[in-house]
Amino acid sequence: MNFIELIEHKRERVRLEDDEIEWMIAEYSADRIPDYQMSSMLMAVFINGLDARELATWTDAMLHSGDVLDFSHVAAPKVDKHSTGGVGDKVSIPLAPMVAAAGIAIPMMSGRGLGHTGGTLDKLETIPGFRTDFDKAEFSRLLEAHGLVLAGQSETLVPADRRMYALRDVTGTVPSIPLISSSIMSKKLAEGLDGLVLDVKVGSGAFTRELRQARELAETMVGVGRAHGVTTVALITDMSQPLGHEVGNASEIRESIDVLRGDGPPDLVEIVHRLGAEMLVLGGLADDETGARARLEETISSGAAMEKLAEVITAQGGDAAVLDDPSILPTAPDHETITADRAGVVKGADALDIGVGAARLGAGRETMTDVIDPGVGTTVHVKVGDEVAEGDLLATLHHNGGRGLEDAIRLTRRAFAIGPGPVSREPLVHEEVR
Amino acid sequence: MNFIELIEHKRERVRLEDDEIEWMIAEYSADRIPDYQMSSMLMAVFINGLDARELATWTDAMLHSGDVLDFSHVAAPKVDKHSTGGVGDKVSIPLAPMVAAAGIAIPMMSGRGLGHTGGTLDKLETIPGFRTDFDKAEFSRLLEAHGLVLAGQSETLVPADRRMYALRDVTGTVPSIPLISSSIMSKKLAEGLDGLVLDVKVGSGAFTRELRQARELAETMVGVGRAHGVTTVALITDMSQPLGHEVGNASEIRESIDVLRGDGPPDLVEIVHRLGAEMLVLGGLADDETGARARLEETISSGAAMEKLAEVITAQGGDAAVLDDPSILPTAPDHETITADRAGVVKGADALDIGVGAARLGAGRETMTDVIDPGVGTTVHVKVGDEVAEGDLLATLHHNGGRGLEDAIRLTRRAFAIGPGPVSREPLVHEEVR
Repeated sequence: MNFIELIEHKRERVRLEDDEIEWMIAEYSADRIPDYQMSSMLMAVFINGLDARELATWTDAMLHSGDVLDFSHVAAPKVDKHSTGGVGDKVSIPLAPMVAAAGIAIPMMSGRGLGHTGGTLDKLETIPGFRTDFDKAEFSRLLEAHGLVLAGQSETLVPADRRMYALRDVTGTVPSIPLISSSIMSKKLAEGLDGLVLDVKVGSGAFTRELRQARELAETMVGVGRAHGVTTVALITDMSQPLGHEVGNASEIRESIDVLRGDGPPDLVEIVHRLGAEMLVLGGLADDETGARARLEETISSGAAMEKLAEVITAQGGDAAVLDDPSILPTAPDHETITADRAGVVKGADALDIGVGAARLGAGRETMTDVIDPGVGTTVHVKVGDEVAEGDLLATLHHNGGRGLEDAIRLTRRAFAIGPGPVSREPLVHEEVR
Repeated sequence: MNFIELIEHKRERVRLEDDEIEWMIAEYSADRIPDYQMSSMLMAVFINGLDARELATWTDAMLHSGDVLDFSHVAAPKVDKHSTGGVGDKVSIPLAPMVAAAGIAIPMMSGRGLGHTGGTLDKLETIPGFRTDFDKAEFSRLLEAHGLVLAGQSETLVPADRRMYALRDVTGTVPSIPLISSSIMSKKLAEGLDGLVLDVKVGSGAFTRELRQARELAETMVGVGRAHGVTTVALITDMSQPLGHEVGNASEIRESIDVLRGDGPPDLVEIVHRLGAEMLVLGGLADDETGARARLEETISSGAAMEKLAEVITAQGGDAAVLDDPSILPTAPDHETITADRAGVVKGADALDIGVGAARLGAGRETMTDVIDPGVGTTVHVKVGDEVAEGDLLATLHHNGGRGLEDAIRLTRRAFAIGPGPVSREPLVHEEVR
């Protein structure tokens, strides 16, 4: 085959055949297609798209570029959750131990934060001693022993995506629904799952800002999962304002612990329960949402979820004492407050501005080589719809000697809109795709 | 500036600003933009296009990536001709000395053949001793002394195009009207011309097979020339069958000499006169086509054009004796004939098939590193509309020990369509764009 001809086909909107896509991904993985050719193909795909068949084949070819995991020796149903990323999105951290305590095995591989969105790995690594890098055998052993692993992506899992993502990042080809879908789904489907729940965020702090785009992304990924034989459900959830109150790394672990104590912020608790319930139903451990939610409540009230997290932290080398005493976690030395300049109703608390502001303080990365400052971040004290008086606290910026503070103040101030009521609130869950 | 943002703009059909295009071409020329990013931009340009303003700026930025020639010390009007390439297209070789003998200075820089189309340089180099590589000073001195230089493109002329063309060639981004226009026009406009005549070929042997595409290409290039302040005229000429009778390298020099002797094939002679007349009018040496044609006729009848070519061949190190005795030129040792398998009218003599056939014999290149065989090629004995009897000679394949012969026979046979009349003939000149 001739790769230039395949580029020409995609350029002219001619369908790529299964064997052409498989050959292309295999050749690229084997370093026999140079980046300057692949970036031309990726731009053609960006603009002209992939149809459902092309996308299913592309994703399958990607996932076969490396290890495909097999946890058939683990008896429990294996279900994972993936989020497209948001501001204050710490959902995985309380969700995973709750669902694992209820009997689902979760081989969760997470990523790091980039831009204004945080990464689960960065948050977990604020726990002293906590390790996230395991080889295949260790990972498998941890999953079998504890029913939950909270790890990073192994280098041998979908190596084609690793290289292709790095190329997309520098060639203006990131925000493409088929390319994002194949990147996410190839990695998730390589985990050897029985079911997958997707949290597709929508709003200013999300990759998909409009519901129409979020729906397209959700439908596309659910279609890929189904084509691969893995039951996949997507919830489209709100990211117009941050989730919960904390935006940072250590601070999001603290807020996650609050959820496991039964004391989390209502929006975060609700999203955790909705996604967790889907996982339990997919895994066959509950018949419906009502039953699933009851089981999840029980993991909180019995302390089983907190115990599961303690068990996993210990198994992964971390200090589980943080669960009893979250003050062990890193904190920022300094803080600055943002207050309301007038009385009224909070009409907006823009997730993007708050997220970028926190990133400037050191909670996020501009490039993958930047180092996260674990203690800094933003606490958002109000939610859209709250009434405030002039001078009321809107947010606290936890900073480190003023690093990024000027930008963060400007962005965080700008994030809040306060005016006369009434205000319409976005639903927490916009739609379900199944 | 950030090149990724510029890629994103072109991807989303946002106009690129003048300073963005200038910065991009300068950075690419200075090797500060990697090929894997430029190929993504080129595919976005391929699919989403460039508007007239973007294209003018892009072309200007390209031409300023290297030397811009200045022949203001040459008193004569400076006019060049460029062809988009065809089969049997040796027009430049008789045209240039005729027009130069009439008083126009022609700083002609030509290319080499690739694929099924021949290159003027390859043809000229079949003349023993003939040199085509000159530095800027030599080129300028030759132009001043003889009013005509027949050279290759210097490495310092539009180096950005050299690199970009090589990249387009391997990334599926060649046949784009704006990219082709900027490539051609940046090189021609760097020659410091007063006027430019474009021969845009249309038909099976041309890059633009359909009149609609040829018209778009012609209009685009004329627009770029005008935006740069160089009066540019395009003739859209027929390339459904080869031009003249000879398709080869030395054989096309022989046919060109026939034209200068007043004994060329009518189609070739007509195209040479039409294009030459445009050049004379553009250069202000004739008021209209009639006057211009008379002056061109005179350069033939007086022998001035032949003398000019002898002078230039000698000046460029070649053996001008070929003009008196073309048998000095290389010839192929072997030949094979193609004859009519039925009586009728020639309804087609497909330029592409005949061109590819001749290339297989060794007259053309598959890749730029292939070596041309100067003596081989195809003589086409008939033109569309000619009547033939069964067994009449259609073509002679001049080959070298059977190299490529099987393919050439198959392709050349397939090229000819013979059937009952009547037959419609394509006009030699389809349209003028000015």
